[in-house]
Amino acid sequence: MRAIKFFQGRLQYLDQSQLPLKEVWRQCKNIEQGYEAIKLLQVRGAPLIGVFAAYCACINMHRLSSDKRSFTMSFLKSLEYLRKCRPTAVNLSWALERLKNVVDKNKDKTVNQIKKEILRQAIDIHKEDVLLCRRIARNGSYLIKAGDRILTHCNAGFLATSGNGTALGVIYEAAKKHKNIIVYADETRPLLQGVRLSAWELGKNRIKSFVVCDSSAAFLMQQGIINKVIVGADRIAANGDTANKIGTHAVAIAAQYHGVPFYIAAPSSTFDLSLSGGEKIPIEKRPGREIRQIQGKIRVASPKVHAYNPAFDVTSHKLIKAIITDKGIIFPPFNKNISKVLLAK
Amino acid sequence: MRAIKFFQGRLQYLDQSQLPLKEVWRQCKNIEQGYEAIKLLQVRGAPLIGVFAAYCACINMHRLSSDKRSFTMSFLKSLEYLRKCRPTAVNLSWALERLKNVVDKNKDKTVNQIKKEILRQAIDIHKEDVLLCRRIARNGSYLIKAGDRILTHCNAGFLATSGNGTALGVIYEAAKKHKNIIVYADETRPLLQGVRLSAWELGKNRIKSFVVCDSSAAFLMQQGIINKVIVGADRIAANGDTANKIGTHAVAIAAQYHGVPFYIAAPSSTFDLSLSGGEKIPIEKRPGREIRQIQGKIRVASPKVHAYNPAFDVTSHKLIKAIITDKGIIFPPFNKNISKVLLAK
Repeated sequence: MRAIKFFQGRLQYLDQSQLPLKEVWRQCKNIEQGYEAIKLLQVRGAPLIGVFAAYCACINMHRLSSDKRSFTMSFLKSLEYLRKCRPTAVNLSWALERLKNVVDKNKDKTVNQIKKEILRQAIDIHKEDVLLCRRIARNGSYLIKAGDRILTHCNAGFLATSGNGTALGVIYEAAKKHKNIIVYADETRPLLQGVRLSAWELGKNRIKSFVVCDSSAAFLMQQGIINKVIVGADRIAANGDTANKIGTHAVAIAAQYHGVPFYIAAPSSTFDLSLSGGEKIPIEKRPGREIRQIQGKIRVASPKVHAYNPAFDVTSHKLIKAIITDKGIIFPPFNKNISKVLLAK
Repeated sequence: MRAIKFFQGRLQYLDQSQLPLKEVWRQCKNIEQGYEAIKLLQVRGAPLIGVFAAYCACINMHRLSSDKRSFTMSFLKSLEYLRKCRPTAVNLSWALERLKNVVDKNKDKTVNQIKKEILRQAIDIHKEDVLLCRRIARNGSYLIKAGDRILTHCNAGFLATSGNGTALGVIYEAAKKHKNIIVYADETRPLLQGVRLSAWELGKNRIKSFVVCDSSAAFLMQQGIINKVIVGADRIAANGDTANKIGTHAVAIAAQYHGVPFYIAAPSSTFDLSLSGGEKIPIEKRPGREIRQIQGKIRVASPKVHAYNPAFDVTSHKLIKAIITDKGIIFPPFNKNISKVLLAK
């Protein structure tokens, strides 16, 4: 099961806004459509939007001038356009930066050669993401035991990456070895990625799961129902502070209060070592109507009601037991160990 | 603005399941309809269901035998029927117990006289609730300052009581004296009492408010946006442990973590001194479809998806800064001060 497909120059994506009731595959015909698909969360998940945006930049190249200077300027503009689509997940910038570097390094080549190099880089990013997921899954699976009852928030599964996922990837891998793993999936308001996407994925992977309201996670910990938490990440600062879907910070505080270990699972592409701490991570604010109207269909409050709708929050590194990455599991002190593990050869 | 009306033997209620889009008043014609209205949260809020259930028992009396023994048995049965409707809020049991006591104390009177006494008691419970709200509001208003930014969870306003409310009543009273109070209302999944009811009430009372997802409350505290929390209660044990809408426990933990004071506001009828601690409070489990389907209209998960849906949780007394009651503000140590304040003459 994959969330996007790229074959013979055609970019297709599973429209996640329609899940779980409809499995609709759409073709992304141009960069504007790709931008909208990311903006509307039809394609979402930090690692996946990096890969998808790189392909969007590729399918746009045929439109650009064959004059090298003009091509280069327009191509870099297209990267800037995509980069601004969603500000919090660093994977988007990271993937686009890699394409920019290809242009920089191949200045002496022809436009056609540069295009080929860009496309090759996008495919590399895609392949790498699949591989990173596999390594995260393997590394993280050692933390899981038979009978674990694991809480997750939002969706960090195969729908959020181009591989098997990060947080859910760890669980899928562990479930091959261990019996009786139960996953509790926060429904994840306002866009309900937990109940719509994680529950659907977990069902496809035959993992026993329960959906719960976000607000009940702390109660489940109090009752001894949850014994581990694993979530994904959108950006991790050099000190381990982690931006992830709104509500993650609340879960991490509750986990600490109840003595439940709280893990992050993310590829090395999610780290932003240029930021010393999480307070510098830009937090996307989304429209209040996502709260006032559910799924754009049911109005639950007057349009006059003000709603404040941050899409992410930042969990302090102090609340995180370990960060599971493709390069290994990173334990505190994070400001020392993150760079040590990530930059190791 | 009132949530129920009782006049010349006619019991009417504002159907809260239709708010805020429609203001539908319904007549409660019989006890079965009253039971359903409470079960379906058309009438909700711990203090209000106590008052409403007492009236439901009254409007049922004309059906019962005029033979005293038979009347008494049937009447007590009707109280038991109503008591089982929702288990967590103690106000329901408390109000029905008061009607039972009327029967016990008036054994020597005729059936007609007993009926009159029961009705009088129901009206007393109603009048008292209005008065208790007024006292809570006055007592609690001293804790609020100009410019306070207060988080509340679920709805503890005039829709939850027969007066002006508990948590919101405090805010309405404080807003008469102080300017620039802003309320942040948790939307309160799964039944959305915050976005549907509290936002509507706050608008009617011209209090500036923002609706937020339950999961973002901790983030708002981290950002310094919230400086106080006030919520209602469904049952308070002798040690101060407090059952309230699911999610309250999570908010209280986040408040403690961020150094934000967390207050409960509740009438003396919400205390259950027969329970030494909160672990003995029965927690209502509601159907999973409340999570899988939103407002019974939009399906967001397959019916095969398991959902765990506790309607309440218990907040440890250790997380509570003070309990605002009609008899005064109770500070820790609660296991000493609750009985001292409540039982004072």
